[in-house]
Amino acid sequence: MDSDVDRGSGTGRSRIADVAALAGVSPATVSRSLSGQGNVSAQTRERVRDAARRLSYVPSPLASGLASGRTRTIGVVVPFLTRWYFGSVVSGVTRVMEAAGYDVLLYHLGSAADRDRFFARMPLARRVDGVLSLCMPLTEDHTLALRALDIPLVSVGSRMAGLPSVCIDDVAAAHAAVNHLINLGHENIAFVGGIPDDPGFGFVSSELRLRGYRSAMGAAGLAPPSALEVFGRYGIDGGATAMARLLSGARLPTAVFAEYDELAFGALWSLRRAGLAIPQDVSVVGLDDHEMAEVLDLTTVGQDAASQGSLAATMLLETLDGRSDTPPTDIVLPTELRVRGTTAPPRRGVGVVPST
Amino acid sequence: MDSDVDRGSGTGRSRIADVAALAGVSPATVSRSLSGQGNVSAQTRERVRDAARRLSYVPSPLASGLASGRTRTIGVVVPFLTRWYFGSVVSGVTRVMEAAGYDVLLYHLGSAADRDRFFARMPLARRVDGVLSLCMPLTEDHTLALRALDIPLVSVGSRMAGLPSVCIDDVAAAHAAVNHLINLGHENIAFVGGIPDDPGFGFVSSELRLRGYRSAMGAAGLAPPSALEVFGRYGIDGGATAMARLLSGARLPTAVFAEYDELAFGALWSLRRAGLAIPQDVSVVGLDDHEMAEVLDLTTVGQDAASQGSLAATMLLETLDGRSDTPPTDIVLPTELRVRGTTAPPRRGVGVVPST
Repeated sequence: MDSDVDRGSGTGRSRIADVAALAGVSPATVSRSLSGQGNVSAQTRERVRDAARRLSYVPSPLASGLASGRTRTIGVVVPFLTRWYFGSVVSGVTRVMEAAGYDVLLYHLGSAADRDRFFARMPLARRVDGVLSLCMPLTEDHTLALRALDIPLVSVGSRMAGLPSVCIDDVAAAHAAVNHLINLGHENIAFVGGIPDDPGFGFVSSELRLRGYRSAMGAAGLAPPSALEVFGRYGIDGGATAMARLLSGARLPTAVFAEYDELAFGALWSLRRAGLAIPQDVSVVGLDDHEMAEVLDLTTVGQDAASQGSLAATMLLETLDGRSDTPPTDIVLPTELRVRGTTAPPRRGVGVVPST
Repeated sequence: MDSDVDRGSGTGRSRIADVAALAGVSPATVSRSLSGQGNVSAQTRERVRDAARRLSYVPSPLASGLASGRTRTIGVVVPFLTRWYFGSVVSGVTRVMEAAGYDVLLYHLGSAADRDRFFARMPLARRVDGVLSLCMPLTEDHTLALRALDIPLVSVGSRMAGLPSVCIDDVAAAHAAVNHLINLGHENIAFVGGIPDDPGFGFVSSELRLRGYRSAMGAAGLAPPSALEVFGRYGIDGGATAMARLLSGARLPTAVFAEYDELAFGALWSLRRAGLAIPQDVSVVGLDDHEMAEVLDLTTVGQDAASQGSLAATMLLETLDGRSDTPPTDIVLPTELRVRGTTAPPRRGVGVVPST
């Protein structure tokens, strides 16, 4: 029960002041009596409750969050906060939502344990008007639990069947990266991917980027051995670890496609520590155009993460305001190759000769 | 707006009733005036704020009917989401809060307009049990509005008078960075700082780091000319712009202290594009130990941002659970210099000769 009851909305409903006047007590006492908090005699409490009943006093739905569409809050569910893509999307979301007077409840489900706890207690129920799910690796049960909330959902960064979404074409983005390397003359091209903390959860975008790598290679008549597909935990360290696996393999690739820029940064780091020259010995291309990509002169396939967030937030607002009654749409934002200094044609000759 | 105003804390501190009496208004008007909610004339608002200031009015979180975990939600107010420090702190906060079954309302006040909107409607009221303020550059009016919520507040990354906080010793961290450069033999040391989007808002930590730079220089008998203090907008671009100013100045410094790592990354970028060698031509030291610092081999003064978030969240939980009735404490986490490859003794000789 919420004691902060009267918004003075002028809708004709009873106000806390009316209840106070009828009961002959102060508004503060009404508040204490109805909330069951503070020192109020049993007699006073009963008088206040009686007055509230006679006036059909109803607490504000804004405060109690019991009526749909009235919490003016949306929930955002994210698997990462410190990765560039997610921070940028959330930043785009909050900008639009705050301008519209909505609050943003942030659920950071960074581990399998976090996700289990979240879906076990499902705290979104009755607390939010809508949900934005950012690239969440969800099981079918999780998706069902979200849908059971019966509120608008928008997926950002990956598609979910039957839901509107804002994302990029991950397969096409991977094609752009790999075709760039192939067009430079590379044949021995590795894939560096991220592995989730929990093997039970796969990121859809990661699967699509791997698929894009394989199909671009296949279309060029290059069938990469599985040893050229290496994976590390999400983030820079993961990219460094995955690259180390390639550095300890039977044959070093001449080029690497990392499925997102932080992995590429880690790969660059391992290569440099190993004394190899980039791009002379090994070319590296990423995907994101992270704010650090230009500083590291990384060739990458750029996407606009903040715009994905603000577009998804706008779609959600349109649905919430009843402005949009159209079937779920998928908005696919463009990506484009940004050629910088980490890609070049492979050295001619057999094997890698470290440059001096 | 509710009239659930009298907290009756009985601790001898000023009560809202005292403020109301002094200002000659009702407690509800005090609440409305200080929270920025509801219809209150500018004149009345000013009178109430003046009374609150004169009485050093500090709401009692423990006596507050709202502080008993009833919403099981805390509010987090942040000026940035895409900067490493803030993402890491929020990530530490959400981990602790979600484990305790609390939700996190995120308010991203990235611009002066966002902040004005936020403090005009003060959406935190009755929606959260407590607030974590991350390095927010707040005016006195903003602080009063937060306090008028009458719920526990914890400041992260900067101290706010009378509030518990978790931060580092920014002056000492700056001393460590600058002393490292002085100990290497540098005398001509520049400061690269961030400027907020709105000149009316200064970040406390930025001021302290600048002060630390000046006092370390002064203690070594080096009085840097003001031309060696350069500033750029927050982020990598800002560091690049500020460094460009040094590159176009009368005399290039032999070393640079950037007040946080993203500025240092931008400075490195400008230096490399100018064809200068790091650290032979110019040494660079940052502050943070951003996840990219090791990749860029940046010497920096490290801080643990995620632990700041989780500690602050734990402090807030202890207050909310009534486990802590101690006066506000300030937790100061240690920082330490991490020597990497961007610092070295200055070249001997006059001026800078670009290395080949």
